Amino acid sequence: MQPDLPDLHALCAFRARSPLTHCMTNDVVQTFTANVLLALGASPAMVIEAEEAEQFAAAADALLINVGTLTASRAQAMRRAVERAAAAGKPWTLDPVAVGALAFRSRFCQQLLSLKPAAVRGNASEILALAGTRAGGRGVDSADSVASALPAAQALARQVGCIVAVTGEVDYVTDGERTVEVTGGDRLMTRVVGTGCALSAVVAASCALPGDTLNNVAAACGWMKRAGATAARRAQGPGSFVPAFLDALYALHEEESS
Amino acid sequence: MQPDLPDLHALCAFRARSPLTHCMTNDVVQTFTANVLLALGASPAMVIEAEEAEQFAAAADALLINVGTLTASRAQAMRRAVERAAAAGKPWTLDPVAVGALAFRSRFCQQLLSLKPAAVRGNASEILALAGTRAGGRGVDSADSVASALPAAQALARQVGCIVAVTGEVDYVTDGERTVEVTGGDRLMTRVVGTGCALSAVVAASCALPGDTLNNVAAACGWMKRAGATAARRAQGPGSFVPAFLDALYALHEEESS
Amino acid sequence: MQPDLPDLHALCAFRARSPLTHCMTNDVVQTFTANVLLALGASPAMVIEAEEAEQFAAAADALLINVGTLTASRAQAMRRAVERAAAAGKPWTLDPVAVGALAFRSRFCQQLLSLKPAAVRGNASEILALAGTRAGGRGVDSADSVASALPAAQALARQVGCIVAVTGEVDYVTDGERTVEVTGGDRLMTRVVGTGCALSAVVAASCALPGDTLNNVAAACGWMKRAGATAARRAQGPGSFVPAFLDALYALHEEESS
Repeated sequence: MQPDLPDLHALCAFRARSPLTHCMTNDVVQTFTANVLLALGASPAMVIEAEEAEQFAAAADALLINVGTLTASRAQAMRRAVERAAAAGKPWTLDPVAVGALAFRSRFCQQLLSLKPAAVRGNASEILALAGTRAGGRGVDSADSVASALPAAQALARQVGCIVAVTGEVDYVTDGERTVEVTGGDRLMTRVVGTGCALSAVVAASCALPGDTLNNVAAACGWMKRAGATAARRAQGPGSFVPAFLDALYALHEEESS
Repeated sequence: MQPDLPDLHALCAFRARSPLTHCMTNDVVQTFTANVLLALGASPAMVIEAEEAEQFAAAADALLINVGTLTASRAQAMRRAVERAAAAGKPWTLDPVAVGALAFRSRFCQQLLSLKPAAVRGNASEILALAGTRAGGRGVDSADSVASALPAAQALARQVGCIVAVTGEVDYVTDGERTVEVTGGDRLMTRVVGTGCALSAVVAASCALPGDTLNNVAAACGWMKRAGATAARRAQGPGSFVPAFLDALYALHEEESS
Repeated sequence: MQPDLPDLHALCAFRARSPLTHCMTNDVVQTFTANVLLALGASPAMVIEAEEAEQFAAAADALLINVGTLTASRAQAMRRAVERAAAAGKPWTLDPVAVGALAFRSRFCQQLLSLKPAAVRGNASEILALAGTRAGGRGVDSADSVASALPAAQALARQVGCIVAVTGEVDYVTDGERTVEVTGGDRLMTRVVGTGCALSAVVAASCALPGDTLNNVAAACGWMKRAGATAARRAQGPGSFVPAFLDALYALHEEESS
């Protein structure tokens, strides 16, 4: 795939729309997730109490559910937010962090799938576990190659009727019939917490754009890969990678126009 | 206003006192808030369980209540901390994040106002909503200009008997009679999560200083505006803005002395 | 102590093992803690719901308990995780943040000690309070010198049967009989939130290494001191210190080899 032109088009649409993105995400990545969305021009808001989450899910443009630091009370609030978003016709996205490795969140994510997400974004082990193909990794890192999880991603996309993005050293974005491959990025992204979780938030926001969701999700993956590669060239290590990555996301537009 | 000399005086007092600042704030901005307070020379502490928050509120120099990721149990702990701070004569500050847009936190903030904060810091939409003038923005970002909210800020300050800081592209700090305008800053501050929330923490800490609270709060706003402008000049984008901003806060003293 | 050669040996072992480190830590330092562990080559995972924490504690290589933003429900989940880790023979480490200053967490930490941590890491005031020597500091910062807490650290290590690291301007690591002194670091580390908490996570992970735990914990302290000194030389202030510190941790291996 040569992503530059469609990516640029989607990025302009993203910045023009500035999707109000309701993030119910894990404790570890909240700041980075918000800063990634802000750098790209979206408007993030983290609202978590059940009553508020339900009210906000109907008002926001998109909803992200990330189960990284799930608790019983958050699961309840997430479920209510998803039900309200679904009823209001707002797209919601699932990041099934460490599904397969932990029983509580595995049951929860399986139940949520019946509420039909617009997209699911996970690493290979998570997608394999969610599709029922295998039991999942040991922690939050994938123990499987992305390519090995593509058939499971395609089956999951068909079964749920959503876009599935299985991401890692390469990203595959599929609706079960069509599959887009997104390359780029840098290994340094795996030495910084939250790059995958933040990608899920960008995927969630991109589902609020008009047009083909498969292409919009693939564009979101492309922005992150491109900014990651740019930042890795400028960084001295994982510490300086973070500010360089946010700067690169902020400047993506200019870079692509030039 | 020419803020340099009174600001410098207040900054010296702030560093000398190093206010122990009890922050009950939202999940997204905790790290940044702590680092802003540390860079300025304050001593932040985040204590959240009701029993502990109550105990700590009486020991700390100042208390911040930020409702960004409010939950029912945190609201209860916040109320107990505020009651204890009030009983102990310690100043507390309210940041009414997204008040007006969400019903649960709107009720909670209205109730807290009767416990007489030393200061309230919000954006235009939040101050308008808290003053009962209009229903509030759509998310956490203001949909109104700061100037349009000044009458509401002044009315709120008179009604509650506190300092109100309504902040944005320009800051107004008022006790309902006197109003100080603070200019400076940079648009880049709106592309980084937590600059407003961290300002509220600095406002909270500044309320522990001796002297005129209106001037101390205006000084706090001035430090953040000045560091923001310095950081924006040095940064390549919102990512490199964050370390540059903290460095600038840390070096404010030197800058002003020179 | 001349820490270079044993430190390098331990660092190679750490990177080869990449300990899966279960962190139950406070809200303020989660991102920084994860990034410190990732920069050093470990695999962090924050799992907090009681059912999941219990399951994960048996699977991970090491467990960290940090009581910085303790709540009643987290205390319950922590206790279950510690009991399971202990039953599974996995080492767990306690960071008794602000123990002595707050009653709820003081009772909790005292109870946990009977479940025999592999290591305890705290500042002077915390170690003095945990050892029963005095009532503790006013907030999260130490009011006592490290040297003044060494006898208490040694007594605590003997009483519990664990390694105690009392850290600050200098670090002492002791098993009650032997004591290792680790020097280095920089004052700038006290103007950034989470350097102590992140050190506790590295101590926790280092307890999963083969060999002498006293030496492994001292090596962990040495890595942080060395990276801190390197970062302080490169930084303009506490903001630029953070990325420089993570870069320095990531590059420690090269630095030591050269």
